[in-house]
Amino acid sequence: MPASDMRYVYDFTEGGMKQKDLLGGKGANLAEMTRMGLPVPPGFTITTDACRHFLTEGAPPADLSDQVHAALRLLEQQAGRALGSESDPLLVSVRSGAKFSMPGMMDTVLDIGLNDTTVPAVAERTGDAHFAWDSYRRLIQMFAKTVLGVPGGLFEEALDRAVRDNGLTADVDLPVAALQELVAEYQGLVLRETGAEFPQDPDRQLMMAILAVFESWNTDRARLYRRQERIPHDLGTAVNVQMMVFGNLGEDSGTGVAFTRDPATGASGVYGDYLADAQGEDVVSGIRNTLPLAALGELDPAAYQQLLSIMSQLEEHYRDLCDIEFTIQEGVLWMLQTRIGKRTAAAAFRIAVHLVDEGLIDMDEAMRRVTGQQLSQLMFPQFDLTQGAAVLTTGMGASPGAATGVIVFDSETAVARAAGGEESILVRRETNPDDLPGMVAAAGILTSRGGKTSHAAVVARGMGKTAVCGAEELDIDYDAGTVTLAGGEVLREGDTISIDGASGKVYAGRLPVAPSAVVKYFDGGIDAAYDHADAPTRDLVSAVDRIMRHADEVRRLGVRANADTAEDADRARRMGAGGIGLCRTEHMFLGERKHLVEQLILAESVAEREAAFAELLPLQRKDFIRILERMDGLPVTIRLLDPPLHEFLPDLTELSVRVAVAEQRGESQQNDLRLLAAVRRHHEANPMLGLRGVRLGLVLPGLFALQVRAIAEAACFRQRLGGDPRAEIMIPLVGSVQELELVIDEAAGVLRSVAESHGCSLQFPIGTMIELPRAALTAGQIAEAAEFFSFGTNDLTQTTWGFSRDDVEANFFSAYLERGVFGVSPFESIDEAGVGRLVRLAADEGRAVRPTLGLGVCGEHGGDPDSVGFFDRAGLDYVSCSPFRVPVARLAAGRSALPDSSDADTR
Amino acid sequence: MPASDMRYVYDFTEGGMKQKDLLGGKGANLAEMTRMGLPVPPGFTITTDACRHFLTEGAPPADLSDQVHAALRLLEQQAGRALGSESDPLLVSVRSGAKFSMPGMMDTVLDIGLNDTTVPAVAERTGDAHFAWDSYRRLIQMFAKTVLGVPGGLFEEALDRAVRDNGLTADVDLPVAALQELVAEYQGLVLRETGAEFPQDPDRQLMMAILAVFESWNTDRARLYRRQERIPHDLGTAVNVQMMVFGNLGEDSGTGVAFTRDPATGASGVYGDYLADAQGEDVVSGIRNTLPLAALGELDPAAYQQLLSIMSQLEEHYRDLCDIEFTIQEGVLWMLQTRIGKRTAAAAFRIAVHLVDEGLIDMDEAMRRVTGQQLSQLMFPQFDLTQGAAVLTTGMGASPGAATGVIVFDSETAVARAAGGEESILVRRETNPDDLPGMVAAAGILTSRGGKTSHAAVVARGMGKTAVCGAEELDIDYDAGTVTLAGGEVLREGDTISIDGASGKVYAGRLPVAPSAVVKYFDGGIDAAYDHADAPTRDLVSAVDRIMRHADEVRRLGVRANADTAEDADRARRMGAGGIGLCRTEHMFLGERKHLVEQLILAESVAEREAAFAELLPLQRKDFIRILERMDGLPVTIRLLDPPLHEFLPDLTELSVRVAVAEQRGESQQNDLRLLAAVRRHHEANPMLGLRGVRLGLVLPGLFALQVRAIAEAACFRQRLGGDPRAEIMIPLVGSVQELELVIDEAAGVLRSVAESHGCSLQFPIGTMIELPRAALTAGQIAEAAEFFSFGTNDLTQTTWGFSRDDVEANFFSAYLERGVFGVSPFESIDEAGVGRLVRLAADEGRAVRPTLGLGVCGEHGGDPDSVGFFDRAGLDYVSCSPFRVPVARLAAGRSALPDSSDADTR
Repeated sequence: MPASDMRYVYDFTEGGMKQKDLLGGKGANLAEMTRMGLPVPPGFTITTDACRHFLTEGAPPADLSDQVHAALRLLEQQAGRALGSESDPLLVSVRSGAKFSMPGMMDTVLDIGLNDTTVPAVAERTGDAHFAWDSYRRLIQMFAKTVLGVPGGLFEEALDRAVRDNGLTADVDLPVAALQELVAEYQGLVLRETGAEFPQDPDRQLMMAILAVFESWNTDRARLYRRQERIPHDLGTAVNVQMMVFGNLGEDSGTGVAFTRDPATGASGVYGDYLADAQGEDVVSGIRNTLPLAALGELDPAAYQQLLSIMSQLEEHYRDLCDIEFTIQEGVLWMLQTRIGKRTAAAAFRIAVHLVDEGLIDMDEAMRRVTGQQLSQLMFPQFDLTQGAAVLTTGMGASPGAATGVIVFDSETAVARAAGGEESILVRRETNPDDLPGMVAAAGILTSRGGKTSHAAVVARGMGKTAVCGAEELDIDYDAGTVTLAGGEVLREGDTISIDGASGKVYAGRLPVAPSAVVKYFDGGIDAAYDHADAPTRDLVSAVDRIMRHADEVRRLGVRANADTAEDADRARRMGAGGIGLCRTEHMFLGERKHLVEQLILAESVAEREAAFAELLPLQRKDFIRILERMDGLPVTIRLLDPPLHEFLPDLTELSVRVAVAEQRGESQQNDLRLLAAVRRHHEANPMLGLRGVRLGLVLPGLFALQVRAIAEAACFRQRLGGDPRAEIMIPLVGSVQELELVIDEAAGVLRSVAESHGCSLQFPIGTMIELPRAALTAGQIAEAAEFFSFGTNDLTQTTWGFSRDDVEANFFSAYLERGVFGVSPFESIDEAGVGRLVRLAADEGRAVRPTLGLGVCGEHGGDPDSVGFFDRAGLDYVSCSPFRVPVARLAAGRSALPDSSDADTR
Repeated sequence: MPASDMRYVYDFTEGGMKQKDLLGGKGANLAEMTRMGLPVPPGFTITTDACRHFLTEGAPPADLSDQVHAALRLLEQQAGRALGSESDPLLVSVRSGAKFSMPGMMDTVLDIGLNDTTVPAVAERTGDAHFAWDSYRRLIQMFAKTVLGVPGGLFEEALDRAVRDNGLTADVDLPVAALQELVAEYQGLVLRETGAEFPQDPDRQLMMAILAVFESWNTDRARLYRRQERIPHDLGTAVNVQMMVFGNLGEDSGTGVAFTRDPATGASGVYGDYLADAQGEDVVSGIRNTLPLAALGELDPAAYQQLLSIMSQLEEHYRDLCDIEFTIQEGVLWMLQTRIGKRTAAAAFRIAVHLVDEGLIDMDEAMRRVTGQQLSQLMFPQFDLTQGAAVLTTGMGASPGAATGVIVFDSETAVARAAGGEESILVRRETNPDDLPGMVAAAGILTSRGGKTSHAAVVARGMGKTAVCGAEELDIDYDAGTVTLAGGEVLREGDTISIDGASGKVYAGRLPVAPSAVVKYFDGGIDAAYDHADAPTRDLVSAVDRIMRHADEVRRLGVRANADTAEDADRARRMGAGGIGLCRTEHMFLGERKHLVEQLILAESVAEREAAFAELLPLQRKDFIRILERMDGLPVTIRLLDPPLHEFLPDLTELSVRVAVAEQRGESQQNDLRLLAAVRRHHEANPMLGLRGVRLGLVLPGLFALQVRAIAEAACFRQRLGGDPRAEIMIPLVGSVQELELVIDEAAGVLRSVAESHGCSLQFPIGTMIELPRAALTAGQIAEAAEFFSFGTNDLTQTTWGFSRDDVEANFFSAYLERGVFGVSPFESIDEAGVGRLVRLAADEGRAVRPTLGLGVCGEHGGDPDSVGFFDRAGLDYVSCSPFRVPVARLAAGRSALPDSSDADTR
């Protein structure tokens, strides 16, 4: 393809917000604002096509330079000044702008166009020589570092030296002469380090900066970020070239950021910060105290009114909360950026519904604007901040929740405090697998290093434990047993703190925890949630209510709950579950019944075994009666016993030590010896891959028959009382249709015999978990026997990846996340390429054989919003998750049903 | 489809040997002999189509009865007598005959056509009233039991009573009158038990017997057998109806079985047994002593010559060893059956090559006639029986090999004897997981119960340990510590016995073990094998040599060996390996190097870890130099470290007990405590799914780089000496392309740097194991980075099925085999539907992305003949197996290359 056929440069007047693929997010929005007639400094965008060409061919397109210069000539016309002009020089910024916001890439080079001859012209035009020379100094420093690759430290040292030599403390006070000397020194540095002069030709400056942006697409950090976020490596970035405007040219200049609504609460009305006589970086850096946006109304009423009008125009146009950056140069307002603004979870719900009421969007679109993750955040308990609370520091919200406890610095102390009934917060620089017992024992975890993929964060999320990570201001001294705050304040072991795992805030003392209003709503309905609530809370609850109703209306996918007890079943119904997708029967072998299981395992004769079964039968029957009663009329999928028998026995190492110690002491221990023999016999090297599930059912005669009988008798009992019990019997860990056929033969016989002897009808479907790769791979065979499949994606992930969840999350998942092997733990969100492929394959091949085959999922992925969308697309009938996640799954299922939801996700 | 269009009955004159699907094996061969003009009693075959109709519709085809009667009329014409005739009645047999020989089905009903009115006629025609009435008695008994389902015990009791009442000891002596009374009693029994008279109508007798054969296709035992042997359930059986002939009508009658060559040794010349005045069942039951076939030459020279001529004709016709059954009725020879004869492994090889030399078959066909299993049997050491040896009893050869040792009855004693350096044979009624330590410690295992799928058999084969199972004559008394032989002889603990795991024979005393001549041949060439060998052995070695050469000529599939040391590499070359497909590096961290690994694990600083690496580097380099030297010019696939670190540390339970005991004793144990902390830190709940393979390589910086450096430096060393080192670097346990890319980046850097600093060229391919389902499922992605795949089917089987081999074989595989969940352990032979599907998918999708992708397999399946055929069909480049299995794999690869090998397998 001849390069000359391809267009690589678009003026801002030509593009639009739908062209993010070609122009990047920033460029598309700048073009959109330009086309709306808003005051945007003129400029143009170099497309991602050009970047891709550069990345694959190793050189820019042959005519890129020509196209850039043509666009530049147009820009010069629009600006009324020319790059490199010695009278009124145009200065431009060069900014990267990919489709997705992406850290790690070269961000910005400002003031391109300054050189030895244009500096005096700028000084003269602005009447501010200090400004001109300081800008030039900054250009050389930034250009050398990011475009030429000269170590930035060299320039910082030179600057520090100049400040010292002039007897000053801050560089802003440097006199013009000193800045001029510094410019000369910087130029010498560039020559020394690169062997070439700092480029004086503004055109060369510009082209070099553009190519440097292209190159920065492939820095290690950028690549890592893309791996983690699953952004394709071949997208490339666009580059925006724009006329510079200056907010630091006196009191009639200034700069600010603003939101069209409050992004923290969702309340209507503009919201933002303004700083007079300043540039954008000053606002962001927080060196100077900003004023609330309203102050601009006093300083420059005209500009303020113009700004308000623009913001209103933008919101109407984008139909969403927008955030903007603007600059006022000598009384003239310029829009530098706009984008859809980030917001808190509560704000997301409130804004979405407000926009509906304002007629800007419909309910479908409102549902697209909120996520399952946001709903989930709203369901965690939150600190009650109405009394005010001192924020000690802020880290990253790494695992949501609200935790309070005394500071401990090591795992042992956390365990000891927990044993004494005391809640603690484990405070570490970072954690590693040795800290695991302490992480289990503590109420929350606070680290000073590492981000959302750090060991602490990954493990805490896996446990559902509150964590704040990377609170970098904290100075932790293990030896001294102290943690020092930024302000110098010192906390010690035993001091009480509170951490908020959603916001990342760390508070002094014990804060009261307020139950979530949203949970109150799900648990008790809208009236219960309104009770004693303030107006914003009521508004939030109402927004959640409206969106949930809409989700339930539009969703195709059913949502059930995992519930093992009558209490869980109650909560499941309240949370809106359409049945129980996984009722585990393990707990029916625990507690006071454990001795019966031990008797079963130690049984030396059929009679002894049958006796244990006989005692277990009425107990299990009672359990099933209670659950079937609570879920009357709804399906209850009951899984026959899954875990290996030795889970009901003592730990081998502990028992071995006890026996050996007793032997040393010469103490009698007949029972222990007998138990030890049994434990040894049942010990397995890899119990996850051992004698459990259907294997146990086939090897231990009578076990599954006992459970099926208990279910059947419970159902008959319910039927006699006029109930509508809807049990579904599920066989775990099936790998081949032969296993399933043997169990089905046995179970069907039991059902028939109970139905006959009790005179009731038991048409219960019998199905299987699909939780082994082989079950998925032979799903066509298995569907000949199974009436339904339930994907056990926890186990399926374990065997597909070869990951034992107990071992790997603590041992190396943080390293994997940091090195970008995956962007999210495959236990958190379904791995579509591997595990997901098996799910699709099994669903398709199973349905091909048996079109009426029921399909569900009961792994923890059933409550993960991203995974729910996948299961919907894979054609499953329902997801099942913990009762608490049911609303999240309902919302995710609703969003998944929207026609173009995947586009909306990447807004 | 109107049933009348379908033909369900074929006269013997109409069918042929290629119609086994339709007529079953027996029917096809009877038809073939009939068409050859051999003296076969006339008859006809009812097809498997009819059986399938009966099984699916629950009733026979509407016109089956008409077709049977038409065929019967033809048979009567051929026989010259009629069913039910009161003058010269025709009697017929009804026999099942499926495509595959199959135990558990109804076998035979003889003498159909006898009833109250035909019995006297038979008595008169044969002049033998005793024969006639005894035949009638037997018909009623057999018919009642197998067709009518009356318990057989009732008839046996009546018979015993008659013998007693007549003051006799054997039923053959019963006078005719007593037999007549017995017939009356039997008829009364039938009426009482079934509510209906014993059918007098011969036509009804016939149709009832035919349908009973159909029904017997679905007995539990038949279904189980088919599950175990992977025979489809919907094949159905054929039924053969044939004129009865009698070998028990005096001294000019008789019956025999014969082989056209010696099936034990393969020597040329007929071979068989003959019994005058007897029926076939008398030969098989062994009640009377048979004569060698040659004796017939004296008794009836004409019949003998005719028989020899027929046998020669059959062999020429079938081009293979045939076994036959024949009967002589009053001087007239009748052929009752022929089929391809079973033979020993040695006979298979010798006969195949003899047939080539006789011009009957070509070398392709000769290779089809031998199996990898047979070659494998010939490679086990065998007892030297030249001095004679007393056979104590014979069981089932369950796991091949030759073992000698003292009798022990329990696991503890076996372990204790082994600790004392004494070899033992563990003698048990049956084994269970508790016996595992004893099975490991003993030289061999002998059980009195259970077959080839029993726990003892499955576990022994998994361990490669010699076992004889189901030696049912043995009476084992654990309490007395004795085993009593059939003859009453008693053996005690400590007595020495020898067991042959191929033949199932148990010998008294210690037998000398003769090394396999075939192994000598592979190890040292044909001359070494000929040395001191007798003529049959030389003939065998020559046959093996010719067939192996042919296999190497025709095979497409390469065969490599798994070898970790120079010694293994030597043996691999001798056995004909074309390279090393798996060189494990684990052993390079063992032995005296273990302290370095401990140092590595306990390292608390980077410096300590690097110090351990520095010491390991020259040791590993030396290992690689030696292997690359032995395999000069051939590929050597080196796998980087695979097992988890804690395999190099003491066992948690043992160490915990040691520490606890020492604590009790107040003994100091600083080191142990430090070690225990490390062991606890590295302990994993499911190490198979834990921190190992590429995970360890990514988490422990420097480990893989060390290994790659050692390989690179070793290769440079070999190159400087003029060698041709061809290393291939293999990364274990990869689940995602990201892992592989990270390791390849690191490894490629090391290779580059070593190549530069040593001035050598290191173009070594870097590839990966495919041993996790996810790796197979994302093979298309992984092939972007990997230059080759090696399927680790052991691990792939573990994760695809969710079976930890260490746990499941001992715990429940025998139950699974017995219940027919699978016919063979998926660790022995590749599971094509599950694991095999992943292999095909990964091979296809990998090659689609990278057409030059190398494909091999290095699991133990690489040495399993059945699996080798699968890998060949899946398009792999090579299999790799233990050096000892290389010849077996070569042969299997050769057979797999033959055009219609899969047909030949099912002959």
